[in-house]
Amino acid sequence: MATRVLALAALLIASQPAFASEAAFTPDDLHTAAYLRDLANGGSAAYDIVESLTTEVGPRMAGSDADPRAVAWAQAKFRELGFDRVWTEPVSFPLWRRGAEQAQVLSPYPQPLHITTLGLSVGSNGPLEGEVVAFADLAALSAAPAGSLDGKIAFIANRMTRSRDGKGYGPAVAARSRGASEASGKGALALLIRSIGTDHARMPHTGALQYAEGNDAPPRIPAAALSNPDADLLANMVRRGQPVRLRLNIDAGVVGEATSYNVIGEITGSEQPEQVVLIGGHLDSWDLGTGAIDDASGVAITMAAGAMIGDLKTPPKRSIRVIAFANEEQGLFGGKAYAEQHKTQISQHILGAESDFGAGRIYALRAGTSDATRPTIAAIGEVLEPLGITYESEGGGPGPDIIAVAGRGMAWAQLAQDGGDYFDHHHTANDTLDKIDPRALDQQVAAYAVLAYLAAQTDGGFGSAAKPEAP
Amino acid sequence: MATRVLALAALLIASQPAFASEAAFTPDDLHTAAYLRDLANGGSAAYDIVESLTTEVGPRMAGSDADPRAVAWAQAKFRELGFDRVWTEPVSFPLWRRGAEQAQVLSPYPQPLHITTLGLSVGSNGPLEGEVVAFADLAALSAAPAGSLDGKIAFIANRMTRSRDGKGYGPAVAARSRGASEASGKGALALLIRSIGTDHARMPHTGALQYAEGNDAPPRIPAAALSNPDADLLANMVRRGQPVRLRLNIDAGVVGEATSYNVIGEITGSEQPEQVVLIGGHLDSWDLGTGAIDDASGVAITMAAGAMIGDLKTPPKRSIRVIAFANEEQGLFGGKAYAEQHKTQISQHILGAESDFGAGRIYALRAGTSDATRPTIAAIGEVLEPLGITYESEGGGPGPDIIAVAGRGMAWAQLAQDGGDYFDHHHTANDTLDKIDPRALDQQVAAYAVLAYLAAQTDGGFGSAAKPEAP
Repeated sequence: MATRVLALAALLIASQPAFASEAAFTPDDLHTAAYLRDLANGGSAAYDIVESLTTEVGPRMAGSDADPRAVAWAQAKFRELGFDRVWTEPVSFPLWRRGAEQAQVLSPYPQPLHITTLGLSVGSNGPLEGEVVAFADLAALSAAPAGSLDGKIAFIANRMTRSRDGKGYGPAVAARSRGASEASGKGALALLIRSIGTDHARMPHTGALQYAEGNDAPPRIPAAALSNPDADLLANMVRRGQPVRLRLNIDAGVVGEATSYNVIGEITGSEQPEQVVLIGGHLDSWDLGTGAIDDASGVAITMAAGAMIGDLKTPPKRSIRVIAFANEEQGLFGGKAYAEQHKTQISQHILGAESDFGAGRIYALRAGTSDATRPTIAAIGEVLEPLGITYESEGGGPGPDIIAVAGRGMAWAQLAQDGGDYFDHHHTANDTLDKIDPRALDQQVAAYAVLAYLAAQTDGGFGSAAKPEAP
Repeated sequence: MATRVLALAALLIASQPAFASEAAFTPDDLHTAAYLRDLANGGSAAYDIVESLTTEVGPRMAGSDADPRAVAWAQAKFRELGFDRVWTEPVSFPLWRRGAEQAQVLSPYPQPLHITTLGLSVGSNGPLEGEVVAFADLAALSAAPAGSLDGKIAFIANRMTRSRDGKGYGPAVAARSRGASEASGKGALALLIRSIGTDHARMPHTGALQYAEGNDAPPRIPAAALSNPDADLLANMVRRGQPVRLRLNIDAGVVGEATSYNVIGEITGSEQPEQVVLIGGHLDSWDLGTGAIDDASGVAITMAAGAMIGDLKTPPKRSIRVIAFANEEQGLFGGKAYAEQHKTQISQHILGAESDFGAGRIYALRAGTSDATRPTIAAIGEVLEPLGITYESEGGGPGPDIIAVAGRGMAWAQLAQDGGDYFDHHHTANDTLDKIDPRALDQQVAAYAVLAYLAAQTDGGFGSAAKPEAP
């Protein structure tokens, strides 16, 4: 206890020049925020929560047998962590199943290729065979003449570039999202892409595709990602100049409708309990890994942050709502359902922030709030500074599951994480517990606890969302 | 050409203090060795050879459909590289096949585990189920009471440690080699081991096991390796205290006898062509990866080194024999066959050195030769020094495929490579081309070219092998 008192005294001294924060928050609130920050940063429950979800449930693809186990796990975990209210809200979506996924070079260099089917892909209805036509990127495929891929297998070889903020993902992922319909429009039987990932492990990256819709949309063709070493291998074969023939066998498809649940835990506010600060992550994962970084981490960070606020002797003024969203991976279904179900209560959502970018340390706070409340965000940023977090007044955007609520007007904040290695493991079997540094999780819990607590203590909230930047 | 003359002049100056090398070799031989060294180190054919084998043949497990393609590839490559003689010698061995390999936790935390069957393992004859009993290491399993594993699945959780020289492999691999018979002796239905590897990729490491032989040997049970993240996962489940039940389905087994070939290319010596310096690597790989580091690299390094010697205007005095050995992985069959087939010519084998430790840079020269010829090895070491290679007068051992010939008396040298990351990818699907630094391969070609050339120029060879140290 003496240690804690000393630490608080040190914090008081350290926070003396924090003019902005002193203007926006009471000394008591700032003391409490600093206490939460340092307590969490010194050791939080987050790693144990990730370990629990990945060990006791493991892969939990939306609609799979593991999905209801994950929902039950989340309810039990919220209760165990002492949340005041725990409930679920239904989320419905198409039920997609993955079966066999095999690729084999038939000639001139017979050998297997490692692939994984893209989420929502149709199957091949048994093996199909064709010659590979390689394209440097989606634009090159789009420029191919109509009919030029008749009976062929299109291969898009574009590489994702590595960066701290993941900015290489957007340009690269278009091949995954739109490649199948583009290739089909040129006559292709199937699409292969280089994995949207920055690693060189022989482990393909899955992720959802989107078929073109409408009466003039081309037929839906099967699509899969090659691991990056396999994409190198195929490119090296094609470069030799002889026709490269493949056999693909992809068993997959939408087989009905499923319902899962957003699982919600709430710490009840003491003064305006109907007003909420929303934090969360998504409960579902892809089926290949145990979903440790995507997104057990986000669920665990925000659960742990909420629980620490709940453990305070004096509750926050407003409620802290932590959401483990259903089925983010296949189309943000949980976030959209939440926005729809709560559309008459948007104004009661003071601020939202989602953690869905792995387990790397947070380096920046950004926000989309009314201009008038920017000083309050800056004041929160001051309390985060000892964590190595800088307030950036420009840029950013809401996490994927809160896009829909933010689109309806909820102010949002972003605690931007270092994602330099996120796309090494993202959407692969390699998304497992060992990729996580427990100390980095603690730093994130500290940041979410400070953000959520201080947001709940503001006098007037943050106004309506500033329009997020186009991606 | 002017550049080359200048480089040679610089080398002459640099080699002035090299008293040992000047005592052992003529100035012409030293000039030629330095020329080979610097030419290779500036850019060799080795990377292209690895690219060719991994792209055009790929995985080439002994006895597989790809094995004869690999043999044909090696013959063609030796000819393309200008070797004077190219031939094959038959090697027979048990034909082992791998089929399905599946593991599933049934309770209390249902989820799949990633495994790969150990080489030479029997199958499970359909799915088997049992409770897991975990052991820290092979010694702990060996200490279990007889009958204590009746109906159970044994799990050995030992971890391999990382080191430059791979010294962690020997202690760890005993679990793979001997674990199945130890577990069976206690009544187990099957064995799982933590992969013998230093990585944390979700990619299990295969490798051969050895069942106990003899009338009192326990029944042969199926055995597989968990990836390291899966071994963590299973250990975390077991640690929770409830019985952990698994279902294993392993389809594998020896299904007959197969014949492959040692493929041999030779540069004919000008003075004593019947005397040979033997270098090489092994042509076979496991079936999971494309065998880039294990051991396309060794084949490529020694092929490229031999070819450079063959391109000299003046041939070496003795012959340079490069061997791409058959079926190293499943029991050193190629090396044993060679020793048997050449048992009357051992005294004509001046020196042997095999490259089979990946694609990392060489840092040391060690040798097992007669005491009288140690100064000659030290003299070769001096020529290698500019490559960052140090002569070490103690330790080392012959590469796996030349153990049998060395055991019959052939002197050996070891060009010890940095294997710090070798066991990250060894025996996994991740053994692919992208793991190789072409410049590191060039350094190795330089070292093998110097070693082989100077060994071929010695007056009296290296005597009989010094006894290798016990592993």
